[in-house]
Amino acid sequence: MTGGVLVVGAGLLGTSAGLALRRAGVDVRLRDSKAEVLREAIGRGAGRAEEPGDPPAALAVVAVPPETAGDVVADVLTSGAAEYATDVASIKALPAARVRERMGSTGRYVGSHPMAGREISGPGAALADLFEGRPWVICPDEHTDQQAVTRALAVARMVGAAPVTMSITDHDDAVALVSHTPHLVAVLMAARLVDAPAHEIRLAGPGIADVTRVAAGDPALWTEILSANAPAIRDVLRNLRADLDRTLAALDAPDTAQAQLYQLMRSGVDGRARLPGKHGAARTDFVTVSVIVDDRPGQLARLFADIGAAGANVEDVRIDHSPGQPVGMVEIDVRPGTDQTLRAALTESGWRVP
Amino acid sequence: MTGGVLVVGAGLLGTSAGLALRRAGVDVRLRDSKAEVLREAIGRGAGRAEEPGDPPAALAVVAVPPETAGDVVADVLTSGAAEYATDVASIKALPAARVRERMGSTGRYVGSHPMAGREISGPGAALADLFEGRPWVICPDEHTDQQAVTRALAVARMVGAAPVTMSITDHDDAVALVSHTPHLVAVLMAARLVDAPAHEIRLAGPGIADVTRVAAGDPALWTEILSANAPAIRDVLRNLRADLDRTLAALDAPDTAQAQLYQLMRSGVDGRARLPGKHGAARTDFVTVSVIVDDRPGQLARLFADIGAAGANVEDVRIDHSPGQPVGMVEIDVRPGTDQTLRAALTESGWRVP
Repeated sequence: MTGGVLVVGAGLLGTSAGLALRRAGVDVRLRDSKAEVLREAIGRGAGRAEEPGDPPAALAVVAVPPETAGDVVADVLTSGAAEYATDVASIKALPAARVRERMGSTGRYVGSHPMAGREISGPGAALADLFEGRPWVICPDEHTDQQAVTRALAVARMVGAAPVTMSITDHDDAVALVSHTPHLVAVLMAARLVDAPAHEIRLAGPGIADVTRVAAGDPALWTEILSANAPAIRDVLRNLRADLDRTLAALDAPDTAQAQLYQLMRSGVDGRARLPGKHGAARTDFVTVSVIVDDRPGQLARLFADIGAAGANVEDVRIDHSPGQPVGMVEIDVRPGTDQTLRAALTESGWRVP
Repeated sequence: MTGGVLVVGAGLLGTSAGLALRRAGVDVRLRDSKAEVLREAIGRGAGRAEEPGDPPAALAVVAVPPETAGDVVADVLTSGAAEYATDVASIKALPAARVRERMGSTGRYVGSHPMAGREISGPGAALADLFEGRPWVICPDEHTDQQAVTRALAVARMVGAAPVTMSITDHDDAVALVSHTPHLVAVLMAARLVDAPAHEIRLAGPGIADVTRVAAGDPALWTEILSANAPAIRDVLRNLRADLDRTLAALDAPDTAQAQLYQLMRSGVDGRARLPGKHGAARTDFVTVSVIVDDRPGQLARLFADIGAAGANVEDVRIDHSPGQPVGMVEIDVRPGTDQTLRAALTESGWRVP
């Protein structure tokens, strides 16, 4: 990209973008308010420091928290550091409103959101491959210059992402449904454990571990995200509460409310089935093969070597723990048709394939 | 066990118990109201059919749905088919009440609950190792004969489980917290997806997949479980709703309620941290090493072989999908101290270890 890219904010997303763009041969300048963060990102090869004589960058990628993203975009555009700018905050109405407020127009700005992340943060957690194959949502409106969109699309493609265009409202509604409300639900469930007796928590298994996994995310960042997308989340959460209230009423008279409880369970199955699987395939496109393994070094190596030798491609894998015991179960998802061959081959190699 | 074990109900749990007990050399008789189910379980080696001249079994293990468990226990004890009986339903107050109603006393019965299962059912899904290392809760009360407890403990140990004794109330409260309410929460979230626009669901990632995973469970069985443990679940769910209502209020005025939202996020992190990890170790006892892999057969084999060669024992593994792209990230949890060596060894072997 002639003119290069200016990345502002050398955290997980900014440094990852820098690494991926450098790999694609792009001139990347980095900026961060913290000198040691900037140093680490440069040290990792995510780009170079800005220099006084630099011409305006073709595009600024602003990777700072949602609440400051709009201001940083406005600063970068008005100072002449970049011709166009995008930000990568996980909500899009807030930064766009701030840019409009500051600049009167949002022409040279287009908001975007790469659907990628990790539960750890900072330049040390950055990955050149973080965006590979992930949706990168780009949200132009009627005031956006085509050049801003073109350049944001180019960056998304250069880092290996799959660009998707949608309106700001559609984006913020979508993440309220598929990211922000699930986070809240996980947190609400996890919060029930804080004061629970130890003998109850002792019976916890993989189910509640799955339900609450995302609740471990950074509380400060999530507070900011939820605040910024409050109206859209509230809509989803209100509907969820209506179902919850009906469920509570049904639990008050379970003998007469079985049909209602069943209907809710059925909706859960149906809703879950709509989630995209790997490569967009429905989850039912895979068959699970379970294998018992001993909890010793080298067992998984031997198992996966045998799977490879059987010619099977693993779509997903889960290890199911056995607390207190030296055995576990490995569940391997493969395409239907390959499961029989795999079962036979693993049994042949001495694995316990129930 | 002299006298042998009678397993009633040759589904997932009953057949798995039969397989494990047979392996331990126990004489297992099987009973199921469906002839073809019984045939399949016997065919898999889970035991033999009952015979007219059989003496009473030392213990009956009743593995039928919660709503009929108490009646089946009473039938088995009054008919003389077994001297003592336990059931394995996931709730304990309901079957105990039914046994007391039918027999006037619960002396020869002790309820139990192996904390093991799969998302598939029937004798075909049974595993001799299903209970290995899992807690098997046994719930005696002041009327229970010591022999009933002794025999139930013996069966739990023979199938490889880790027996835990607690009161019926403690058990039902515990599963309401760690299993039934999380299931409901997952269902409530998944139900929001039923009528959602496809362009919103398209942005779904691994977070919501985790939160809603258990919602795929059998709706009829779950309706029965939730109905039977309604009072205990209601207590947990009411507290959750109180937090939810506070959250909705905070989302109505997010600018003034940041401290409150932050506090909730913080509780989520703290609650999540209380969940037991593998072998009872806290989850923070592990360090994650991430590796980029190509989505081709043999890649995981090579990776796990290299991990084995490095001497590292894998505590957990996750494969993170990249929809539409031929790459993925494998996250490997290892004990602190081994992660540096593992990173170095994998990098040395040519892996991308960011």
